[in-house]
Amino acid sequence: MKLLSFRYNGQTAFGPKVKKEDAVWNMLAIAEAYGEANFPQTITDGIAAGLDFVEKVRKLTEQAQVDENPDRFKQPFTAIEWLAPLPRTAKNIICVGKNYADHAAEMGAEAPPEKLVVFTKSPTTLAADEQDISVHADVTESLDYEGELAIIICKEGRNIPKQLAYDYVFGYSIANDVTARDIQAAHGQYFLGKSLDGSCPMGPYIVTKDEIPDAHDLSIVTKVNDEVRQNGHTSSMLFSIDELIAEISRYVTLESGDIILTGTPAGVGKGMTPPTFLRKGDTVKVSIEGIGTLVNRFV
Amino acid sequence: MKLLSFRYNGQTAFGPKVKKEDAVWNMLAIAEAYGEANFPQTITDGIAAGLDFVEKVRKLTEQAQVDENPDRFKQPFTAIEWLAPLPRTAKNIICVGKNYADHAAEMGAEAPPEKLVVFTKSPTTLAADEQDISVHADVTESLDYEGELAIIICKEGRNIPKQLAYDYVFGYSIANDVTARDIQAAHGQYFLGKSLDGSCPMGPYIVTKDEIPDAHDLSIVTKVNDEVRQNGHTSSMLFSIDELIAEISRYVTLESGDIILTGTPAGVGKGMTPPTFLRKGDTVKVSIEGIGTLVNRFV
Repeated sequence: MKLLSFRYNGQTAFGPKVKKEDAVWNMLAIAEAYGEANFPQTITDGIAAGLDFVEKVRKLTEQAQVDENPDRFKQPFTAIEWLAPLPRTAKNIICVGKNYADHAAEMGAEAPPEKLVVFTKSPTTLAADEQDISVHADVTESLDYEGELAIIICKEGRNIPKQLAYDYVFGYSIANDVTARDIQAAHGQYFLGKSLDGSCPMGPYIVTKDEIPDAHDLSIVTKVNDEVRQNGHTSSMLFSIDELIAEISRYVTLESGDIILTGTPAGVGKGMTPPTFLRKGDTVKVSIEGIGTLVNRFV
Repeated sequence: MKLLSFRYNGQTAFGPKVKKEDAVWNMLAIAEAYGEANFPQTITDGIAAGLDFVEKVRKLTEQAQVDENPDRFKQPFTAIEWLAPLPRTAKNIICVGKNYADHAAEMGAEAPPEKLVVFTKSPTTLAADEQDISVHADVTESLDYEGELAIIICKEGRNIPKQLAYDYVFGYSIANDVTARDIQAAHGQYFLGKSLDGSCPMGPYIVTKDEIPDAHDLSIVTKVNDEVRQNGHTSSMLFSIDELIAEISRYVTLESGDIILTGTPAGVGKGMTPPTFLRKGDTVKVSIEGIGTLVNRFV
């Protein structure tokens, strides 16, 4: 199931993509029409309910499909404003640095890190698919892209064992960990250089984990103006997803709604000869197999 | 005005300390009794209203003081559960590293940083005055204290000029930036070592800025089991409060409810000979002139 968040008629809504159509099921409308009083009113509450929520959405959309007028529950993509798939909540956007060996090398590391490199992005950075993002020319001359697989956590846990890690995963999305290289380098700790407004576009969908049988068997490709820059594969992660969840939760309590960005493969602008950063008018597309393509123009 | 958050009768409430009494005015009770329908229902909403909120609280408590039964609005400190002065919201706990030269030196830095060192703590770290905190013996052998002045932001802004910085300050509190030194060092980026559960105790109060005419003229003292460990003064900050606000907001949009921890003076456990870390049963007290004392036992 491909879930998305959107705005329609001034209201924030969510639902799964309609199969084989460029449209979304409006779950709040379906739940209301069918008298489902206990249906989650936000995607955040839905994610906290995990697989039960996915099952409920599946059943309700099957019911809607055979409704005498199913169209009353569908919004065509042309009629909605896309939002980041998760809204801002009191949760972390946790980022893992240097989690692909080839990227660690292009960033000048002599060897890949033995310990996880973990930092955060400000919640003010979340942006939607197709949303324009500033190049922030007032503060940086080296804005860079980092296409990444994002994991959405659906359950609270600390000290999560590797074997149970996927129980805590709701699904996957695509993120661009946009980074101001000059600020990142000058300040040592990464938070400022990673937290410019709009520097965490995410989407277009959250794909529930049942549709991704092996999250380490996905190609991940980033294009700038249709030129392939990053051509990686999630099998190359140094710390695998279950290791990331186990290791991060050794220290930090993970919670439903937390987002983990799993690192970027080689091919960022800083690694090019000469380094080539984002400019006004550039369009960045990050595609991950089985999830889709996240597109943002820089302005 | 010294504002605090508390739990009473199963409800989250807030209000100012009653002058010369060990009690708090329950603002929600006062607002309800006097028919103030538009009064903020959370301290977060109050802070977003800034000085207007402070004025409103002042007027209402003056009115309550001459009520025929003012005691109905007061809760003695013995009857309430203290909470962190700010609840968890979708905001940042922004921390500034190495902002006192003597502390930078004891941490082994050859020179104080020329650029701000900025990182975050997870929102799961917030804890209250008098709340017990785990030493997390399962993951660290070097848990350390860092007494710090905390700034509470009340207005959204980016690129805030130094001269206007204090317009964005609602008030001040005391925080202990509890840090696992071994995790901090092993992982390079600080987030994991700074984000163990309960590692951001804060309180007891938020003191509104009108009561602190000069936030750079405050003594800051940290004691472990009544032994003075840190004996600093806010005049020694390398980046002053207006510089911190101006510089952080060059990159990150600050918002009402954001917390900025302004760094710690010399005297942390890691700087002692030999290094001396927190153990079960230790009590840490951080006192800042004009604000009060934050007390936590480690268990």
